[in-house]
Amino acid sequence: MLSHIKIVLVETTHPGNIGAVARAMKNMKMNNLWLVAPKIFPSADATSRASGADDVLAAATVCGCLQEAVADCQLVIGASARCRAISWPEITPRTCAEICVINEPYQSVAIVFGRENSGLKNHELDLCHYLLRIPCNAEYSSLNIAAAVQVVCYEFFVAAGLQGTAMRIGDKGECPLATAAQMESFYTHLYEALTDIGFIHPEKSKSIMRRLRRIYNRIQLDTKELDILRGILRMSQDNQKSR
Amino acid sequence: MLSHIKIVLVETTHPGNIGAVARAMKNMKMNNLWLVAPKIFPSADATSRASGADDVLAAATVCGCLQEAVADCQLVIGASARCRAISWPEITPRTCAEICVINEPYQSVAIVFGRENSGLKNHELDLCHYLLRIPCNAEYSSLNIAAAVQVVCYEFFVAAGLQGTAMRIGDKGECPLATAAQMESFYTHLYEALTDIGFIHPEKSKSIMRRLRRIYNRIQLDTKELDILRGILRMSQDNQKSR
Repeated sequence: MLSHIKIVLVETTHPGNIGAVARAMKNMKMNNLWLVAPKIFPSADATSRASGADDVLAAATVCGCLQEAVADCQLVIGASARCRAISWPEITPRTCAEICVINEPYQSVAIVFGRENSGLKNHELDLCHYLLRIPCNAEYSSLNIAAAVQVVCYEFFVAAGLQGTAMRIGDKGECPLATAAQMESFYTHLYEALTDIGFIHPEKSKSIMRRLRRIYNRIQLDTKELDILRGILRMSQDNQKSR
Repeated sequence: MLSHIKIVLVETTHPGNIGAVARAMKNMKMNNLWLVAPKIFPSADATSRASGADDVLAAATVCGCLQEAVADCQLVIGASARCRAISWPEITPRTCAEICVINEPYQSVAIVFGRENSGLKNHELDLCHYLLRIPCNAEYSSLNIAAAVQVVCYEFFVAAGLQGTAMRIGDKGECPLATAAQMESFYTHLYEALTDIGFIHPEKSKSIMRRLRRIYNRIQLDTKELDILRGILRMSQDNQKSR
């Protein structure tokens, strides 16, 4: 689904970074890696840092210049943290993902990452439609290249909705949440048990019960959890009665 | 701005990863790093991979166990890729950032990252309110720890930029939320009280206590509410003793 997006690394110095990029890509279901004149490749360092993403490394295309890597691309986006005299149209990773994945008018896109120390040169930026800037600390803005790739690919993955499951807070999916009627019955039971142990005095029972309701309503108990709590109440009452 | 959020690394094996985490944090204006029993630290590898984020490394707090690291935290979130028998309430990094940065009801939050190979143990997860899961390739889901920290901190940074535009939810604003240490003391008390009434049997106490933790961690008690619950436990114990 994301194979129409190439990750292109230009003249990477440290082979370990190439491996870490392959891992970051595979984590996000991306596999289309291009290497422009890497300093050392292949390399044991790259394979070690790839940590199981060897297939992405093995399938990587090595070429001599950026023009070659982006030749078949309809959209070229250059990642860069540097401020430039001539300002480029800039996008964030999230907007980039919207453009490349959600709107999806492109059959082939390249995201280009420059050298570890010096980024992309101006003649390389000339090939780009947009500059991709990762929001970050203005006083310490240089991300490790694999970390930058991780953030960008993460946004692609999220945009693609590949996970399929929107995470729901508090939904444990184990057994059904308690109904209002079950909760009412729990509160009645709780009131009885608290009366039995002498915690509740009639004159201030209302405000205490209101507070307890606020606590347990907030908790969104499922039916199994409710059973546990009622088991505790029952046991406490049995003990009380056997006095 | 983000210093109320601790990044906690548990028993990290490779010091290079600790350095890479420091860099990822500083890139996103975060500086509050805690190391639980790191295998090797300080180390030249850590400093080298920190690549200028030495200040974050130097200010890191080293401690012996996770409980110590999260003692003063009102919200503890554990990062994990593993599937577990008892499912925990799960959130994505984006939701996590909304909870920790945009809604902002917390003075102190911990995001906990487990061991490189084996993640967090169950007794460590017991300390967590939520499980943080980074959306990723189901067939290759283990991100490098620094890459995972980068994604999470990036979401914090982006969310911080949006601060003030989103509505506050879940903020009760009445009195401070209970800290992890206060909750631990509550769980100890709860265990005693349940033992007193005969609800807990040693051979199955672990799974029951784990379920109860899951319930009460989800509830996010404030200190006043905690006082009420402990009052109930005390009263129940007094009754038991006077038998």
